Amino acid sequence: MKQLRGTPLKRFLRDWRRTHTYESEIIILLDSVTYPVNVGSIFRIADAVGVNEVVLCGATPVPPHPTITKVGRNKHQNVAWRYEEVASEVLDTLHQAGYQNVAIEITDQAEPYYEFSAPSRTCLVLGNEDHGVTRASLAHCDAAVFVPMYGKGRSLNVHISAAVILYHLAHTSSFNSTKSL
Amino acid sequence: MKQLRGTPLKRFLRDWRRTHTYESEIIILLDSVTYPVNVGSIFRIADAVGVNEVVLCGATPVPPHPTITKVGRNKHQNVAWRYEEVASEVLDTLHQAGYQNVAIEITDQAEPYYEFSAPSRTCLVLGNEDHGVTRASLAHCDAAVFVPMYGKGRSLNVHISAAVILYHLAHTSSFNSTKSL
Repeated sequence: MKQLRGTPLKRFLRDWRRTHTYESEIIILLDSVTYPVNVGSIFRIADAVGVNEVVLCGATPVPPHPTITKVGRNKHQNVAWRYEEVASEVLDTLHQAGYQNVAIEITDQAEPYYEFSAPSRTCLVLGNEDHGVTRASLAHCDAAVFVPMYGKGRSLNVHISAAVILYHLAHTSSFNSTKSL
Repeated sequence: MKQLRGTPLKRFLRDWRRTHTYESEIIILLDSVTYPVNVGSIFRIADAVGVNEVVLCGATPVPPHPTITKVGRNKHQNVAWRYEEVASEVLDTLHQAGYQNVAIEITDQAEPYYEFSAPSRTCLVLGNEDHGVTRASLAHCDAAVFVPMYGKGRSLNVHISAAVILYHLAHTSSFNSTKSL
């Protein structure tokens, strides 16, 4: 088995992108995610998963920011993003546009992410590192999902949970593989 | 929808763990993962997913280390781990014990992680941040899996890829949910 590097790797990734797509439209909303390292990592993940937009709200730091640029590998330049102060207003507008707003949060109605099927339009809501998704934002969410914890810890870092759930969303409903072409 | 905090959250997590298990035995092998922040994050993820052991090899920094402790939320104290200098020797021994050694790597035979079904015993091999899994280790791997990239970036951080793949492994074969109890 041989590692692909350089041109063969580039070609592999390009061919893979051309032959694999998914139909879901995904937006990520950061509801006062305050650490620039998390915001940067989320931009890198957002680019990797191919999300449609990142909306930075409340106390979330915005580009240009040296840590966001470095950790995010400059991917805020490849992913559409905007800043909006009030998350609940954005969620209201998205809901009217047909999005299902889904919080990453353990609530009294939360379900494990792997049981959640991706709607055609999803806004995934990520909350503050300490306080989670605000009550005001939760009031505008249709569902809450969580990443199960099998050990001693009570939580994962927000960008890790987001990556696990985003890839699940991408690879469930409406995933098209045309490998045979 | 109401966020769970404090005692209700503790109870929720405890009940969830009691009623959801998976049979696969998972080991993570770090093949010269050199950044302490990545090693720490991998310990936190390893605890969350409930892996059986973390094997640190080659140039991988080991606990006690302030960054590993901080980023890993001290989870190296909850997850079995050991240091072994030569990764390929560990992989050889694991193979003889019935483990399938699976590299996170884009190789000429790699498959997307979501098409990979978890064997009952899996050793997931994570490589160096710049150079990936070494040729010597790849020679002892039965398969290679990768996390698809839908954007401009060529890769994700190694701990992000690991989290996505580990949760996939946990939630595919041999997953038992006894929620109805």
